[in-house]
Parts: sequence; C-alpha cells; structure tokens
Amino acid sequence: QLVVVDLVAGEARLVDVPGPVVDPRPDPTGRRVAWHHDGGLWVVELDDASTARELAGSQEPLVRWGIAEFAAAEEMDRDRGYWWSPDGDALLVARVDEAPVPRWWIADPAQPSTPPSEVAYPAAGTANASVTAWIVGLDGSLTEVPWDAEAWPYLVGAGWDAQGPMIALQPRDQRALDVRAIAPATGASDSIHQGTDPVWVERLPGTPARLDDGRLVMGRDGERGRRLIVGGEAVTPDDLNVRAALHVGEAEVLLSANPLDDATVVDVWRWSKDGLERITDGAGVHTAAAGGGTVVVRSTSLDRDGVRTAVIGGAELASLAATPLVRPEVAIRHLTERRLATALLLPSAPEHDGPLPVLLDPYGGPHAQRVLQSRGAFASSQWFADQGFAVVVIDGRGTPGRGGPWERAIAGDLASGVLDDQLDALAALAEVEPRLDLSRVAIRGWSFGGYLAALAVLRRPDVVHAAIAGAPVTDWRLYDTFYTERYLGHPDEDPAAYERSSLIADAGKLERPLMLIHGLADDNVVSAHTLQLSAALLAAGRPHEVLPLTGVTHMASQEDVAENLLLLQLDFLRRSLHL
Amino acid sequence: QLVVVDLVAGEARLVDVPGPVVDPRPDPTGRRVAWHHDGGLWVVELDDASTARELAGSQEPLVRWGIAEFAAAEEMDRDRGYWWSPDGDALLVARVDEAPVPRWWIADPAQPSTPPSEVAYPAAGTANASVTAWIVGLDGSLTEVPWDAEAWPYLVGAGWDAQGPMIALQPRDQRALDVRAIAPATGASDSIHQGTDPVWVERLPGTPARLDDGRLVMGRDGERGRRLIVGGEAVTPDDLNVRAALHVGEAEVLLSANPLDDATVVDVWRWSKDGLERITDGAGVHTAAAGGGTVVVRSTSLDRDGVRTAVIGGAELASLAATPLVRPEVAIRHLTERRLATALLLPSAPEHDGPLPVLLDPYGGPHAQRVLQSRGAFASSQWFADQGFAVVVIDGRGTPGRGGPWERAIAGDLASGVLDDQLDALAALAEVEPRLDLSRVAIRGWSFGGYLAALAVLRRPDVVHAAIAGAPVTDWRLYDTFYTERYLGHPDEDPAAYERSSLIADAGKLERPLMLIHGLADDNVVSAHTLQLSAALLAAGRPHEVLPLTGVTHMASQEDVAENLLLLQLDFLRRSLHL
Repeated sequence: QLVVVDLVAGEARLVDVPGPVVDPRPDPTGRRVAWHHDGGLWVVELDDASTARELAGSQEPLVRWGIAEFAAAEEMDRDRGYWWSPDGDALLVARVDEAPVPRWWIADPAQPSTPPSEVAYPAAGTANASVTAWIVGLDGSLTEVPWDAEAWPYLVGAGWDAQGPMIALQPRDQRALDVRAIAPATGASDSIHQGTDPVWVERLPGTPARLDDGRLVMGRDGERGRRLIVGGEAVTPDDLNVRAALHVGEAEVLLSANPLDDATVVDVWRWSKDGLERITDGAGVHTAAAGGGTVVVRSTSLDRDGVRTAVIGGAELASLAATPLVRPEVAIRHLTERRLATALLLPSAPEHDGPLPVLLDPYGGPHAQRVLQSRGAFASSQWFADQGFAVVVIDGRGTPGRGGPWERAIAGDLASGVLDDQLDALAALAEVEPRLDLSRVAIRGWSFGGYLAALAVLRRPDVVHAAIAGAPVTDWRLYDTFYTERYLGHPDEDPAAYERSSLIADAGKLERPLMLIHGLADDNVVSAHTLQLSAALLAAGRPHEVLPLTGVTHMASQEDVAENLLLLQLDFLRRSLHL
Repeated sequence: QLVVVDLVAGEARLVDVPGPVVDPRPDPTGRRVAWHHDGGLWVVELDDASTARELAGSQEPLVRWGIAEFAAAEEMDRDRGYWWSPDGDALLVARVDEAPVPRWWIADPAQPSTPPSEVAYPAAGTANASVTAWIVGLDGSLTEVPWDAEAWPYLVGAGWDAQGPMIALQPRDQRALDVRAIAPATGASDSIHQGTDPVWVERLPGTPARLDDGRLVMGRDGERGRRLIVGGEAVTPDDLNVRAALHVGEAEVLLSANPLDDATVVDVWRWSKDGLERITDGAGVHTAAAGGGTVVVRSTSLDRDGVRTAVIGGAELASLAATPLVRPEVAIRHLTERRLATALLLPSAPEHDGPLPVLLDPYGGPHAQRVLQSRGAFASSQWFADQGFAVVVIDGRGTPGRGGPWERAIAGDLASGVLDDQLDALAALAEVEPRLDLSRVAIRGWSFGGYLAALAVLRRPDVVHAAIAGAPVTDWRLYDTFYTERYLGHPDEDPAAYERSSLIADAGKLERPLMLIHGLADDNVVSAHTLQLSAALLAAGRPHEVLPLTGVTHMASQEDVAENLLLLQLDFLRRSLHL
C-alpha cells in the first residue's frame, strides 16, 4: 500500500497498489504518484478510484525501468531513475539493462542455509549496465531519447523543468560532460553544454539545472576554486570553492561553498541578479533546502553538540537528539606549506599529561572530508582520545573543498601522495605539539580510510606502528568502474596505476600489527578485498588479525556492532602499541 | 577416458567413456569396470569393443546411483555406493535421493564472481538423504531390496560375497544394527544378525563380512574391550580391544587391536581355526592389507621416522620419503587413575632448560587418537616444542581404543568430561615434570580439537590462558546428523545435550586470547561455526582473532597454507603468553 499524506489538510489515506513500492514520488501537481515495482514504472491517480497501472515494464529479468543502477546511486550522486514533467503528464525515465554486467555473489557464510544474493557488480574494467532514457507519457506512449551510447555510456544526471527534459552524459573516461535538452514529443536532443577536462570532469552536485529564463546552472573547475556558472558566466570568485548547487529557483541559486584556503567551514550562499551573499555565519558547516518560498538551514559547529535546523526568517526547529556522552574538543590547524587541515583531539581527563600514543583517524579519499567545523564528526575520535590517545585527523590531497587541482592530484596514484600528506601533517603537528609520542603511532580508518590505514602500515612501518583497516579496498580492480576508472583509468590501459595503488603485492612487507575488519554482507567494497589481502599475508607468513562481521554491509551501523567494534579496536591498539 | 592397467602383463590401455568418471571399480573377474557418472551407474566390458552403457540412471537431478552420500562417506566409514557380485554379472547398488536434505551454500567470498556451490547438508535434526538398495543386473534388470526404511533409514554397510549380497542397517538413533542377507533374484532379505545398545551400536570397521563357511564376522562391545565375533562367538579376549577387521578371508580374519590398558600400541592379529596370533611386534602402530595370498603390513613406531611397509614372508618396500626436519622425542605416560594416555615433547635444543610454557595439542574427540606410538604423528607437536614449549598431547574419554564404555562416556555431553580429562592429565603430568610452567598454558587443536581448544579457553580460563581453535565445531546443531545425533541424540528430543556441548552461549565468558582459524571452503565443519562464535564474541564485546582461510576446506593441507599457519600460530602464542 501507498500512504498518501496531505500535510496541509492533516489527512492520510491508503491507496492499494501492488508491492513492494520502491522510490515513490508524487508529480509536481500532487495529483498522482509514480514508483518502481518489479522491473516496471507504475503510476496511480490519487483523485479517482482507478487502480495502479504499469506505464513501462519488461519481461527481461535484468531490465528495470525507473531505477538508479548501482554505479549511479553509489558513485554518480544520482539516486533516482525517473523525473516527472512539471504538469505531471509524462516522465523522463531511465531504462537500466544489467545483463552485460558481471554477476557477483554475496553470501552469508554464517548462515549457510541462506541463498547467496546475486548482484550486478561493474568492477573496474568490466561492462557497465546499459542505460537508455525514455519519455513515458501517461497516455502509454514510449519515446526513446537516442544518443551515441557507445561514446557516452554514463547518464550522470537528468531533470525536467519548465524548459523541458534534459540529460547529462559522460564518456567512460569521464573527461567530458554533455548536457542535452530534449524535445519530449520526439525524443530528439541538442547539446546545450559541453565541458571537458584532461583528467576528469567533476559534475557539480545539483547541476545541470536551469533558471526560469533558461540560463543553465553548472560548475566549472579552474586553477583555483570550483565556480558556479550561470548562463556560461562565472558568478562566484575563484577564492571561493563551490561545493554544490543546493537549490536552483526561478531566478536564484542557493549554493554551499567554502573559502578556498579553508575547507573546514562550509557556508550557504545565495546568488541572484543582485549578486552573491553569504546567508550563514561563516563558522561551522551549513547546508540548506528550499521550496515554496521557504529556506531551511541545517547547521553544525565545533562549539555546540548536535544539529541546529532553522527556517530563514522563521523559527528554529527543536532538536530532541540526546547529548552525546563524549564532548569533542577539536583543535584544527592548517599545517605544512600545503595547508593540510589537521584536527587534534586530546584526552578530556587531566590525568593524561605525559607523552601520548598517537592515533591517526583519517578518511583521506575523494568526495569526503573528515576535518570539518562540526563537533559531531569527531565523536568516535574523542572517545579514542579519552582512552589515552592523541587522535589526529588529517585531510590531504584528493579530499574535497580545495579546488579542482587539489582533487585531481591523486589521478593515477591513490597511494603515495595521499599517504605522504598524512605523514607530513603528523610530523608538522608533532613539532608544535610535543606531547605526541611518535614512537607509538597507530592508524585506523574505514572504507577509503581502511585502505589508507593498511597502506600506511604496509609501506611506512617506520612511522606507523599498527593499523586497523575497516572495509578497506585492497585491490582497485575489485572496486567499481565509475569511481575507480575516474582516478586510475581503465585497468587495461593503465595497469601500472592499479599496481601502484593496490595493496596485495605489498603483503610480504607487513612487519607491524594489522587488524582487518570487514562486513561479510558488504556489496560495495566486497569482503574479497580483505580476504584476498589476508590470504596474501598468510602466503607471506605475515601475522595479522581479521574480524569478519556477519550480516554487516559497508557501514557497520548496527548499534551493538558499532559499540563493540570500538572496544575491540581499543583492545587491539593497546596490545599492539604495548600500552 | 578410463585407463586400464594390467599389472601382470605390464600393459595399459585407454577406454573411451563419457566423463567425469567417479569411483571406477573392476568386477572380481577383471572383465568389466563400473563407475559413477552424472547420476547414473555405468559399465563397460573390457574384452570387446562395445561402448559404455548406463545400467541405472535418473532424470531427477538430486537422485544418484552408486555413490556414497555425505553422511556415509564422512561418518559411516562407507566410502562407496556399489558392490560387484563375485561373478561380475550384477551389482548391489545404493540409490541416493538428496531431495529431502536441506540445501546449504558454500561460497568463496574472496572470489565473488565464483558461483557458490550448493550442497545437501544433513544438519543435526534435519532430513537425511533417502537411500535404497537395488540389485542391478548387467542384463538391465533392476530389483529393489525392500526394507522398512522409516525404522532403518541408514545403510551403514554392504557387500556381496560367495553367500550373496548383504546390507547393514541402523535406525536414526543408532541403537540397533540389522544385518540382512539378500536373495538377489527377488531382492527379499532376511535378518542374519541384530545388535542393540542402549547408547549406540558401534559397527566394527570391516564388518559385516562372512567366512567361506558362511559364519558372520562382527564386532561386539561389552564392559571391557571390543571383541571380534565369528559365527556369534567371541574369538578375542576382553583385555584386547579390537579396532577393525582388516581382512576377512576364506577361513581367517586379519584384525587390528590394542591391549585394553594401552591404546597407544596397535598390532595386527590373525584369527583362524588355529586360534589368535599377533603377527606384528607389539610396539608401534601397525595395519595390514591382504589379497591373493599376500599380506602387506604397514608399520610406524616412535623409534623410527616414516613408514615401514613389508610383505609378510617377503620383501620390505623401499620408502623414498624424505626424513622430516623435526625429530619428535615422545615420552608417553598413562596418568591419573583413568590412565589417560599423555605424550610430552620437550625442546630439542639444550638451551631451553628453564620452566617451559605449556602447549596442549589435542584432538580429544571420538574416532581419532593422537597419542599413538608413531613418530610421524608428532611432527607438528615437536616443531612447537622446538620453539620453546612443553607440548602435551592427551587422549581422554571418548577417544578410541579403550573399549565401549570409555567411548560412550561422552554420550549426552561432549564438553565436560572431555575437558576434565585434558586438565586432569595436565595436572598429573606437572607433578612429575616440574619444568611445566602452569602459569602459561595454551591449547591448540583442529576440528574436534578446535572445539576442545575453544571450549577450554571459554570454560577454564583459570587453567588455559590462550587458545587456537582451527575449524572448530561451535554449535552442534550445525554439524551432521549421523555423527552428532549418535552422541547427543536428536536436538528436538535432547536440546539440553546441545546446549551443554555447544559454545555460542559461552561467548560472553571469554577473557583470554582466542584465535579462530577456519577454511571458508569447508563443507564438513562449515565456516558458520567460527563466524557465529565470532559474531557472538563481538556482540559480547570480547576481543578475539579470526583467520579466514580462502579456498581451504576442512583440512588445510596445502603446503604453503599449512606451513604459514604454523608460523602465525606461533606468533599468536608468543603474543598471547607474553613470551
């Protein structure tokens, strides 16, 4: 069943439809709802008693209408597969055919009677899902939107606004972006924007989008900060780094951005014909959502627990969140001539006054920052600090907020520069913080951070004396096409980039304690990463520890698992650093 | 292709048959060969150019003719599913239907693109394969051998001798054994022996069998040693424990047996109308094979490396085996009033002269002994001893060689008595060997020994300070019907026996280092045992280590894996005992 809630009237009603209902979305007029079900795109009218009907469907089991395939949802920042027309009489729909994609099996070996699930996993160098776009009318019409899918296989974005439907496409090497306006009656399309980059084109989240006057809103990278482009003109200065178009209105854009020289503070800005203004306070981390003339801002900062949510010009929303048991005290510095954002957390208790063992606690990879002016981001770090560590969190090259060249500095090699920045910032911090005991340094991380932790202990045992690698990538050939090939290219074309960046061949170098943690149900960074590294370590006679997490996916978010993981990591650190 | 080798003529020829060929066996006349292929039983005549033909087959995918199902091969000491008639014109054939058996999946999570294999695993309390017996004529005739399969579901043995075909059956609770002689023309059968036991009937390996005069050769348990029974009469004394009928000839039986009070020495004996004589030397471990008037004896002992193989009254076969790098020096004692067989191995190097940390190195479960007068059995133990340990190997109650009551002492509880015997013998040994440092005691084991190691560290952390559990059973409900129900009954009827004997509920008690090792391809003790215990330990916040072995089944016999496993275990022991 669909539950339809009328917030204005304060009423809810139930609509009988076949289930399960995936990704239901009302049309802009509020008269009907579409959703994905069993390979097809379904719709029901809310204002009469008609039954749900399938607008587009398929008999082929691997073809689905209206969903975002794995790479789109995980890597393209596109979590949907259909877009309503403004008047609700048609939709732009992605048709996804996963038949070409290699099948992987994700089993639960702790429950041998549970059949393994089969997933279409586009590992680097293998075939992607075949994605096409269609105009689907409520009258039952199906009109394909043809393009050269051989050259432009990736549908990275789409939308349908007052000017009509549009799509954004990228080639497999991601070095170009083509935005095309579609004539909905015929499916024919014209390019309205083409961008290129010798390394890769980074699509600004929230774009492409259009103002009511038809001007296209995009992002563009140069030598300094990422800029917002409206109608082909840069409307932000190059010392501001634009992070996303949060909302594109009739004649204005809400954007999030940070000073190019300080990615730890993120403000919301408004651009309109009257110019650019910052609408948040220049400290902390802010984002916004807008609609119906209302702008809601969500703010976190270092001087306050939790999240503050407020309507601009209106009330603050009460937060019922509990106060965390740990109280992060975060000192942020920008160290070395590269201005590496570095957070230091020390034990809260005064008895810890001697030299402190160091725990590096990074993510360190593209598309995610750890060093932000947001207290809640440091809760786990402070917990470790309170156990008697100097916890150090560093964002190095490749992480967001420092502009295009900074992000692209990792192209072809995800290992050496990333690792150098961690160790350079640590050395610089130790010069100004003599309490750091560099003879006892551990590192922990999850996902890319897990990769970085394993990388550090394998390649720099002189500096890093123990590592906890959670859900790490260990062989980039086992990670997905869209992410991995953006940084390392196609493995057939640049195998050396994969060799440089992967860890399996380093197994014989391990001479420090290493704990590998991996969810066996992880269908993003599959547990094969950890198991293959463990097998290589065994084959090299290198002791190490593995903690396989039963029923856990890429994020070990189950409360009891997460809490106990902290305890087991602490035990490992104490054993390994002889504390 | 079949390769047919004529050893007398010294010739080999190839016969084209459809493959794969499983379990090929020539008939007693040497004129034809049968084998299992693709669910069917196939035969080819060797003396003409005729092609292979399927004698019995099935369209049902889970029905197979002529194979031994999992429980038969793993637990019943029956590794075959068909038996030739003496003149080679018919066969007694088992038809196995695995449709009732639950499906389990064994995946290789290190290779996610490899499809998981589906196995029919009869876990305790679940359905077994349905096995029927058939007389299959070379003329194409199929005659079922009917019996009350509801009451007697287990076909534990079979054969076809000069008196005709026969089968041995057991009920699900294994408290009876029925041997039935079959009329091959009709399939009708008559019981020629019925045995019962209030706990379980232990079928003597090599039986049932018949002498040429028709007398049935069986085993029988009493209050003391297991005895050989010929024609209903015991022909061995009750201070000798018979272990197997190695060969049943026209009018004689070769058997293996040990003195009831010393299971560490195993001799070959010959029984005939002239009485019982020991034909090996009363020291070491001997076994024999016979045929065509020749008896070959295979011998190992504590004073010699490797295996000695000799024809009785003839030549010794040269052994080309390399001399092991370690030279076990084994001191065997029988300790406590229970006369627990206990082997002690000390470091070879003289510099180890202080108190020694102790490594218990048991198996400890039914159907396998560790303390035998056989040097090669102690190679790994001596290797550990040479690293600076006093290695102690103990066989307690439930292990073979000490007679029926000793073996049945574990019924209903695989844990407490088994563990007590280990710790009692260790305490007794320490009284006479003051070099044992009881403040540093570790235990390692594989399979049942892995179970015992985990059991010991969980329940007796006062005595055992670290454990390495390889391929352990942790929840007896996950082990198979025929083995587990023999000792613990049906889990629905005696759930308490399963609670007592299983380890998952003990996870919260762990306070000592525990390393779990398990082959992820193990289809006997599946890796779920280790993963479920690890998950329970994590849920209880108990630190532990796991070493998942990629591509490794129940026995980690790959040379590089086995060698490196030793190194990683040693590293764990040194860390855990602070050596």
